[in-house]
Amino acid sequence: MEQRLTEEKVFKDPVHNYIHVQDPIIWQLINTPEFQRLRRIRQLGTSFLTFHGAEHSRFSHSLGVYEITRKIISQFERSHYSDWPKEEKTVALCAALLHDLGHGPFSHSIEEAFDMNHEDWTCKIITGDTEVGAILRRYAPDFPEKVASVIQKTYEKPIVVNLVTSPLDADRMDYLLRDAYFTGVNYGTIDLDRILRMLRPYHGRIVVKESGMHAVEDYLMSRYQMYWQIYFHPVTRSSEIILRQIFKRAKSLIQQDFQFRFMIDPLPQLFNGDLSVDEYLQLDEALIQTAFMQWRKEDDAVLSELCERFIDRKLYKYVEIEQIDVNMIEEIREAFTLAGLNPEYDLEIDFPTDNPYDVFRPDESTDKQILLLDRQDKLHELSEVSDIVRSISGLHRGKHHLYYPQNKVDAIVHELPSHIRPYFSH
Amino acid sequence: MEQRLTEEKVFKDPVHNYIHVQDPIIWQLINTPEFQRLRRIRQLGTSFLTFHGAEHSRFSHSLGVYEITRKIISQFERSHYSDWPKEEKTVALCAALLHDLGHGPFSHSIEEAFDMNHEDWTCKIITGDTEVGAILRRYAPDFPEKVASVIQKTYEKPIVVNLVTSPLDADRMDYLLRDAYFTGVNYGTIDLDRILRMLRPYHGRIVVKESGMHAVEDYLMSRYQMYWQIYFHPVTRSSEIILRQIFKRAKSLIQQDFQFRFMIDPLPQLFNGDLSVDEYLQLDEALIQTAFMQWRKEDDAVLSELCERFIDRKLYKYVEIEQIDVNMIEEIREAFTLAGLNPEYDLEIDFPTDNPYDVFRPDESTDKQILLLDRQDKLHELSEVSDIVRSISGLHRGKHHLYYPQNKVDAIVHELPSHIRPYFSH
Amino acid sequence: MEQRLTEEKVFKDPVHNYIHVQDPIIWQLINTPEFQRLRRIRQLGTSFLTFHGAEHSRFSHSLGVYEITRKIISQFERSHYSDWPKEEKTVALCAALLHDLGHGPFSHSIEEAFDMNHEDWTCKIITGDTEVGAILRRYAPDFPEKVASVIQKTYEKPIVVNLVTSPLDADRMDYLLRDAYFTGVNYGTIDLDRILRMLRPYHGRIVVKESGMHAVEDYLMSRYQMYWQIYFHPVTRSSEIILRQIFKRAKSLIQQDFQFRFMIDPLPQLFNGDLSVDEYLQLDEALIQTAFMQWRKEDDAVLSELCERFIDRKLYKYVEIEQIDVNMIEEIREAFTLAGLNPEYDLEIDFPTDNPYDVFRPDESTDKQILLLDRQDKLHELSEVSDIVRSISGLHRGKHHLYYPQNKVDAIVHELPSHIRPYFSH
Amino acid sequence: MEQRLTEEKVFKDPVHNYIHVQDPIIWQLINTPEFQRLRRIRQLGTSFLTFHGAEHSRFSHSLGVYEITRKIISQFERSHYSDWPKEEKTVALCAALLHDLGHGPFSHSIEEAFDMNHEDWTCKIITGDTEVGAILRRYAPDFPEKVASVIQKTYEKPIVVNLVTSPLDADRMDYLLRDAYFTGVNYGTIDLDRILRMLRPYHGRIVVKESGMHAVEDYLMSRYQMYWQIYFHPVTRSSEIILRQIFKRAKSLIQQDFQFRFMIDPLPQLFNGDLSVDEYLQLDEALIQTAFMQWRKEDDAVLSELCERFIDRKLYKYVEIEQIDVNMIEEIREAFTLAGLNPEYDLEIDFPTDNPYDVFRPDESTDKQILLLDRQDKLHELSEVSDIVRSISGLHRGKHHLYYPQNKVDAIVHELPSHIRPYFSH
Repeated sequence: MEQRLTEEKVFKDPVHNYIHVQDPIIWQLINTPEFQRLRRIRQLGTSFLTFHGAEHSRFSHSLGVYEITRKIISQFERSHYSDWPKEEKTVALCAALLHDLGHGPFSHSIEEAFDMNHEDWTCKIITGDTEVGAILRRYAPDFPEKVASVIQKTYEKPIVVNLVTSPLDADRMDYLLRDAYFTGVNYGTIDLDRILRMLRPYHGRIVVKESGMHAVEDYLMSRYQMYWQIYFHPVTRSSEIILRQIFKRAKSLIQQDFQFRFMIDPLPQLFNGDLSVDEYLQLDEALIQTAFMQWRKEDDAVLSELCERFIDRKLYKYVEIEQIDVNMIEEIREAFTLAGLNPEYDLEIDFPTDNPYDVFRPDESTDKQILLLDRQDKLHELSEVSDIVRSISGLHRGKHHLYYPQNKVDAIVHELPSHIRPYFSH
Repeated sequence: MEQRLTEEKVFKDPVHNYIHVQDPIIWQLINTPEFQRLRRIRQLGTSFLTFHGAEHSRFSHSLGVYEITRKIISQFERSHYSDWPKEEKTVALCAALLHDLGHGPFSHSIEEAFDMNHEDWTCKIITGDTEVGAILRRYAPDFPEKVASVIQKTYEKPIVVNLVTSPLDADRMDYLLRDAYFTGVNYGTIDLDRILRMLRPYHGRIVVKESGMHAVEDYLMSRYQMYWQIYFHPVTRSSEIILRQIFKRAKSLIQQDFQFRFMIDPLPQLFNGDLSVDEYLQLDEALIQTAFMQWRKEDDAVLSELCERFIDRKLYKYVEIEQIDVNMIEEIREAFTLAGLNPEYDLEIDFPTDNPYDVFRPDESTDKQILLLDRQDKLHELSEVSDIVRSISGLHRGKHHLYYPQNKVDAIVHELPSHIRPYFSH
Repeated sequence: MEQRLTEEKVFKDPVHNYIHVQDPIIWQLINTPEFQRLRRIRQLGTSFLTFHGAEHSRFSHSLGVYEITRKIISQFERSHYSDWPKEEKTVALCAALLHDLGHGPFSHSIEEAFDMNHEDWTCKIITGDTEVGAILRRYAPDFPEKVASVIQKTYEKPIVVNLVTSPLDADRMDYLLRDAYFTGVNYGTIDLDRILRMLRPYHGRIVVKESGMHAVEDYLMSRYQMYWQIYFHPVTRSSEIILRQIFKRAKSLIQQDFQFRFMIDPLPQLFNGDLSVDEYLQLDEALIQTAFMQWRKEDDAVLSELCERFIDRKLYKYVEIEQIDVNMIEEIREAFTLAGLNPEYDLEIDFPTDNPYDVFRPDESTDKQILLLDRQDKLHELSEVSDIVRSISGLHRGKHHLYYPQNKVDAIVHELPSHIRPYFSH
Repeated sequence: MEQRLTEEKVFKDPVHNYIHVQDPIIWQLINTPEFQRLRRIRQLGTSFLTFHGAEHSRFSHSLGVYEITRKIISQFERSHYSDWPKEEKTVALCAALLHDLGHGPFSHSIEEAFDMNHEDWTCKIITGDTEVGAILRRYAPDFPEKVASVIQKTYEKPIVVNLVTSPLDADRMDYLLRDAYFTGVNYGTIDLDRILRMLRPYHGRIVVKESGMHAVEDYLMSRYQMYWQIYFHPVTRSSEIILRQIFKRAKSLIQQDFQFRFMIDPLPQLFNGDLSVDEYLQLDEALIQTAFMQWRKEDDAVLSELCERFIDRKLYKYVEIEQIDVNMIEEIREAFTLAGLNPEYDLEIDFPTDNPYDVFRPDESTDKQILLLDRQDKLHELSEVSDIVRSISGLHRGKHHLYYPQNKVDAIVHELPSHIRPYFSH
């Protein structure tokens, strides 16, 4: 149907050196406004406030996921593996490239605040009246739905789904490498080439040659370290808390018919929960940051202070606590209220394990498993074979943290009951 | 007056691994709103549209310049060089940290469009009624002026000026390394450790031990490559052209009393040229991008189209031309006008050598020279000793490029005179 | 007593970038024949037959251990930690530099074959009539014994011993980084800077600040991976087996008064077990390899073949076996003998866990423990605090391998009993 | 004739990450004794005495050259360039792999001392009665001669010669990268991927797309730096001088019928200049180093001292001199003789430019030129287009150095004539 580009196009990339584009459809998709918008959404949300190098965008990550997927498929083709359905290449590459298309600004926080889901938006954009949708439809009328169903894991060929979404998928491999590169930590340095060489299409899914076990162990350990060093870093959590509180306050003000000085489209639609695809695509981090800059001047002291905290990086302090029960939290909240603070905004308890912590757990459904293929062509679930994966797979870890505005709490700490005071006096 | 921090603070940095902060004044300066604002200004302006990794901010570069300066001074102190005035450490570190404080959003373009100068703004912010100013004044009443005079190159001790601004200064060394790291090119990999080891304070300026000559040659070659590969990349120039045209159009609309749907503070002040320090500090790239997003919906077709081009990265096409004279340009402009195009916005000629190209030139004043110190304690200007530097120092290079909107010109190319047509038919 | 060098000397090093030498005694020690001899001893023995990059010498590793130790002490001095005895700097640096001085060619194999111990030789060289001994004695008459006692772990100040030999010592940190660099694997990339920053002298030993826990976890995981990927690699084991068999055969021939064509000093003394220090220092890998080259031409077929195998890298094949008992081994040996093979040389069983596998085990004496120092200045043994270390610390792993000459066994495999044959038919 | 290996083999390589072997003939060639011998020949001769990391062997470099050639051909095949003769792949790969097969121990010095040429030996080994020869003959009877003629640049298809030997060939690209990696300097970091992408087969030779010009400039600058930083380093030259003097002395002793205690085959044949291929293959650096170790004990003081200098790294001191004429040299030699020194061995004058310095020079024959292919399919010699290459291409640089034994000269320096003394008194 479509041929190759007359000349391969490349993007210079710090992680993969070059991203290679050979198919016209990929080139066209990259040049759509919807895909270019990902330049204005950071890959790691507010993490740049903790690791100043982490300014990289979802645009670069999406290209990276595409590139890894391209390399895997290219290896499958070169090796003539019969279990790989060659005709699925384009749908796989498009799904890899577009899988994050629906991410909003500061994605995790905005999804939590407004009860949205980026995967739904991804599919709406892909199948909707957009340039991306038009390009896919031009390729084949049912192509948008095909690509979307890969992302929704309902595509008829499970091996394509497995290639794009699995515990060893291109998404995870790219973000580990990329986030390690841009933050500057070296926990995420996995042996990508070796893992790619060890992947095999096998009976409708992607498995790993057993001799690649150590490379997979190393990859899982890297993920473990990255979660605790980067993704769950308490300073990043603190900035996310401020962000969610800003959204909460603004929403509550809107419900009270507060007259904002600055409130431009599509923010009202976001707060009212009736965004069209077109409006959603106008959301980016520039708009959110501009809104916060302006809201510093609004008459509501709570909103104004929270925005100032975010913009000027005056984040909440945190303390680690061993154990805390619901009663104690209630007591602290009451004590805060008595002392004139507002526990609604001045106190937050955080348990990072509540969050998606996807170090491999073997007790889950088979598509979350990593399978090893031995020399006798038998499959083994990874933790059966790897001592080290078995020993970490049950690990359930989590530190509770209290977050609060230090200046305000310091001012009233002497008024707090004596059994509560120790939490806040350091 | 002030002591060290009880415990050294560090920032994780991909280029220098860690940035070390030992002095309370540096820690306090970093935490001001004025310094945090640099997180919202990209180091390389629009280069991220060419190299998608180049999203890094002036915040990270400023920390890097501080860190290199700290290392140089620390080496001077450890080696007890008598020509280094120890009491100047704090003023040098503060000047290094703050030297880019006045950069605006998309700095080079905005400076050109509005005839501003970031160095002036840096000094206004440092000496003004700001948190940075307050911290410096608390250190010593005349300290803001001292720091500003280092940046303005008028400080009484020329060695401090020379440390912060010279052809081998911490600023250039950090940006070569940092821009190479984030774009992913490897032209900028200089042997920082070796250069730092070779620097010597000597009679009021910083010189290089002769045995470090090759490292300096390599540094200059890296700079040369970085200029032509990164800083003067024609795609980046194309995006800067669009940017300046947006500003030009918006300014002209304001002068015509056009009613903007979106025009919030401090944009009117920017266009009228009467920004206060406080207003200037509200300018960031989020605001500019938000304005462009909104201006797509304005009723002026020229402005709307230009904004769309910038946001959706539909940049102007470019062609390289060997020679072009003023008459020919005039003819092209007339032909464009005849064909219904607007040469004011639809044509731009660019000569990158018009821009600050600071590969070392020996015929310039002594503070632009690199001096080598030989074993007999004699000084030699670098190009006297280095064949390779001498051979490149006279190089004057530059390609002329024409930039234009391909879709519009393609539509009328057949109407152009036959001697003009070849420029535009590829 | 001695001052600093007038100018710091540096060695360019791929792992640490530069090795810095500031003390004359260190410079003099490096330039002794005994230390220069380490250039002729590979750091990883026969591993270069598996990983062709692993040609690096114990010379470079020894410089690296010195450099890390220098950095640690320099950090202790800069921070003015009162628990660090400043006067111990020189003894610590010398012990770090010289700790591997007694390694012989293909060290682990030669030690096993001749029942020697490199640590003993290190101490004999340090305290003996050598240039190293003379330099140390010139520094202080009892200095050779002091340095030796640090290496023997009997020095009066346990903190110096702990600095030079502990689960987190400079030796291990350098070899992980260096072996990873030269083999090209990326399992060994530890965050050296962070670990160094976290070390504290505390009550007579070196401990780690609790906030460095993740860096230490990562370091232990790297070690685990390096052991299984590099140090216990079955191809390397195979070459070590050949090496030991050559020594065994030559020893047995000497005992039978076999007349070697090639047998030069100090080889006879090595085989007779009566090497003087001076003779020991004449042993290097060039001599061993030259002997093997020559012994290919000896009249003994076993020796000749083994030498050919080593020189031409015709190693033994290996098979992994789940379980093997003593009886079975005996049966195989008998079957081999019946089929005309010589099980003495044609069969070897290997259990890598028999070897020093020093991933951290908490049940050991306190000097093998890593202790964390929390904010309340309390110590915790690492595995109490780290889930992941606790979960791996009990891991006991090991694969049994059979090694044998494939060509010979293939020729007689059909003669082997049917229950034995499967081991050898792949 | 031969197919692919059932499974691709890989070698872990620090420079290219993995070396991929797909053809049985390549796999067989690597496993010959002749190719394995390259493990015992260092890539950079005595450079490890200057840069301790430079212990890497010609084995690893040869694999690297093969790998780069494989990548270039693979790119040509993927892109279906019609100017590339597909049937030449195997001969090109074999020539790339084997091009250094004839290198001897400390190659440049031994060639100079014994007037040999490694290229001749390479061809003798390839076409001779060796395992390599047998494997090639099995592939096709005339194949050894074909491979040899590529190396001798007489092969009928010039494009194959050009691929294997040209100013931009795989040999140079691998050694720049590899030598930079192992020495630890960062001058050699070229953008290999980009250069490879830009190569094109064109009318019987390999040319470069014009858009790759900057990458080629950068590669030439890297070479320039590597020559002066690594290959011509005066400490390395000093060790080469000692090496050549040892050979000279030993040869002269043999001619005088001196009775050596240690003189084993094939050393006599080497000194007599009648080595057979089989004897040549027994030469390696282990043998040379062992000979030097033994010759320290010979009764000839000159030989003994020179060997000690090499083994213990007590090299000659060097001084740089601006200009020196033949008369002055003669005077120094006479003054040395008068003072009881032996100028034959105690003095050496070195001009590194006498050596093959292959920074690109445009005035040479066309096969030493780099040609750029522009968009109109016209060729341009590089220095016509590149200012920077033109400006360096005429550079003729060279420092004269005097080398001498410092201890001996210091003892008699006061006896030297006053106009000669300054050279030796520092």
